[in-house]
Amino acid sequence: MGPIYQIEHDSMTFVQATLAKQAAGPLASTTAEQRNNALAAMAQALRNEADAIIGANARDMEAARAKGTAAGLLDRLLLDRERIESIASALEELVGLPDPLGEVVDGRVIAGGVQLTTVRVPLGVVAIVYEARPNVTADAAGLCLKTGNACILRGGSLASNTNYAMGTVLARAAEGAGLPEHCLQVMADESHEAVEQLMGLTGLIDLLIPRGGKGLIRSCVANSKVPVIQTGEGNCHLYLHEKADPEKALKILVNAKCQRVGVCNAIETLLIDDSVADELLPACLAALAEHQVTMHCDEHALRIARQQGTAGCVPADPEGADWETEYLAPEIAIKCVSGVDEAISHINRYGTGHSEAIVSEDYTACERFLAGVDAAAVYANASTRLTDGGVFGLGAEVGISTQKLHARGPMGLRALTTTKSLLRGTGQVRA
Amino acid sequence: MGPIYQIEHDSMTFVQATLAKQAAGPLASTTAEQRNNALAAMAQALRNEADAIIGANARDMEAARAKGTAAGLLDRLLLDRERIESIASALEELVGLPDPLGEVVDGRVIAGGVQLTTVRVPLGVVAIVYEARPNVTADAAGLCLKTGNACILRGGSLASNTNYAMGTVLARAAEGAGLPEHCLQVMADESHEAVEQLMGLTGLIDLLIPRGGKGLIRSCVANSKVPVIQTGEGNCHLYLHEKADPEKALKILVNAKCQRVGVCNAIETLLIDDSVADELLPACLAALAEHQVTMHCDEHALRIARQQGTAGCVPADPEGADWETEYLAPEIAIKCVSGVDEAISHINRYGTGHSEAIVSEDYTACERFLAGVDAAAVYANASTRLTDGGVFGLGAEVGISTQKLHARGPMGLRALTTTKSLLRGTGQVRA
Repeated sequence: MGPIYQIEHDSMTFVQATLAKQAAGPLASTTAEQRNNALAAMAQALRNEADAIIGANARDMEAARAKGTAAGLLDRLLLDRERIESIASALEELVGLPDPLGEVVDGRVIAGGVQLTTVRVPLGVVAIVYEARPNVTADAAGLCLKTGNACILRGGSLASNTNYAMGTVLARAAEGAGLPEHCLQVMADESHEAVEQLMGLTGLIDLLIPRGGKGLIRSCVANSKVPVIQTGEGNCHLYLHEKADPEKALKILVNAKCQRVGVCNAIETLLIDDSVADELLPACLAALAEHQVTMHCDEHALRIARQQGTAGCVPADPEGADWETEYLAPEIAIKCVSGVDEAISHINRYGTGHSEAIVSEDYTACERFLAGVDAAAVYANASTRLTDGGVFGLGAEVGISTQKLHARGPMGLRALTTTKSLLRGTGQVRA
Repeated sequence: MGPIYQIEHDSMTFVQATLAKQAAGPLASTTAEQRNNALAAMAQALRNEADAIIGANARDMEAARAKGTAAGLLDRLLLDRERIESIASALEELVGLPDPLGEVVDGRVIAGGVQLTTVRVPLGVVAIVYEARPNVTADAAGLCLKTGNACILRGGSLASNTNYAMGTVLARAAEGAGLPEHCLQVMADESHEAVEQLMGLTGLIDLLIPRGGKGLIRSCVANSKVPVIQTGEGNCHLYLHEKADPEKALKILVNAKCQRVGVCNAIETLLIDDSVADELLPACLAALAEHQVTMHCDEHALRIARQQGTAGCVPADPEGADWETEYLAPEIAIKCVSGVDEAISHINRYGTGHSEAIVSEDYTACERFLAGVDAAAVYANASTRLTDGGVFGLGAEVGISTQKLHARGPMGLRALTTTKSLLRGTGQVRA
């Protein structure tokens, strides 16, 4: 598809995307050493400019507090010296990861002597839209530049001053280290319309990654004309089969639901075989209650909860709203099922294709679940919380893809690349 | 992304997609042997039912002739015994290709003993929208079923009776061989609205492949809410560098432009270094004229054409319209450039990222071109016509992707798969 960006020619976003596209060519031909030097310089610059960044962050914090922003969001927004150090270290860790560019993924001799070599190359221009989390500004910039992609960052408006300050420091350091001008830009226009403009810049933006809430992700999928990778929507399930080991079941349940509730790989629904609910659920409900989890129970689970007087149990929505809710909170839906087939079909209907788990000592039930569930990561007897680029051994993580094309599950540096076939001949033509 | 298909619930297209989704689960767990048996049965059924199919095709041909359809389109629409035999043989060739499903693409032990195995699995439901080419009905069905995907086919309305007849024969054979009911469906609703409905069925359609003209492809990219792979739009260039070998230049030019003009890997623009235009262009223009090619020439080329009195040379559009035109006809644009950098930047501006070629004996110019051009396949001293799944050694070809995500260039069976990570543990949780 050639450039069809006749729209919004005069917008700031169009201008920034055009500059990014211009930077993408020279950036793609930098060496790994140049890009790694830039990452190291960016890390050092964050440390050197920590005072200015913390000052900008203080203005964001003050404005956010004045708006009555929730404590959790305020905490994610806050930067101090320690956090800046950890952000800088993360950039330095990227330096040590292998360079995916130039990797030969296929090669052969075709057509009577033409050497075909398919190599990994940058995508071009990557745009990332995210929430008010300043660490993402540096992470995303680092991942894109490591993989030779120009990048456009659009963080949550609550972090506006912080993003601008960090973006300026990072871009100046990258350019100072020899990377092309405009290879890293923070979006100047913070309006919602600007994100819509971004979604329409076919031919300029090679990939748009929305990192954030369901609303943002679904809006990008529904409206974007540029390629999108959906990340992180996780309506995950844990299914306790009738042959579940009670100890493993409890340990995995508590880890998958309670260790961190606001993350995409935490579970939102517990499914359990009806035949063992009376036996297994009491301990599960008690453990969840102990962690102050609100339980949205189907009839059978509610009966058990009332029998043992468990706190925090309420009836699940009769219309099934709980089955499709990603609480991202200390809440869980609980449903009894007739067996592994009903569990699989419930998950394939309501799940978001992220991470799903069965607990069972029955070989056939486990293998049936692993084969039948349609998701990026399917577990037998382990916690869905393990779905993570670091845990999976990928080094850095761009996000966790819940789509099937291009990348599925935790995305490492390779997910920010494409391939190109180089063909070197001596005059060969098609017969 | 979970199912968000609340729209158009009562449409025939929604019903068909729902049935396809239901078939996808059981289809994914069929064995390679079952799927290969089905392909063989489908091939045999086409032979057995050739009379009925040819009868249906005759009705389409009659209606198309009555409409005054162009000879080229009529020829593509026509089926006879010989063509049906060749379609059946193509299905049988698929049987012999390796099964991509189940291939382990990554594997390791993580988190203190969890066995991570990432395997290749079907996408689910693939929809293919194409023109009035009956062979695509069987090809697409075969490629999808070989890779364990349920498929929905929507061919051009000119081939309506043919598609229905072939689709029925193929589906009955596939189901007779044990594949799940509804795993192969021809779209019943032939309206344009039905294609729009298809593009909105997020959660039901896992991949939409538009095969056809630029209008169809751009409309899918602009409007589809389900994942799309763009194929086949090819505004390809041949660049003759000042150090081009005149013999190779001429041979590649004639092959790339004249061998078949209606295909996506044929060239549409000839770029040539200004410094050697007087020397190299005369023979090029003469050869193109001999093949009855109309030449849209820039000033320099036009001057040379007039000097030697070449037939078929006209001035290129002063607004640059020729640079962005995929003629798919015996027409070519000719432009003189100052050198390899201008050639690269012209190609990156006007090209569609398909196939691009340089002819030069200069090592540095070739390598600069190979590195700098942003396209699926970049050639030095060989014809762009070589971009093809068969020539590239992939066996069957689903199409040629001009996008960067998921698949780029000729797409083999793998392009119709995704991956899934299976994790087998013994109670491991996130630390």
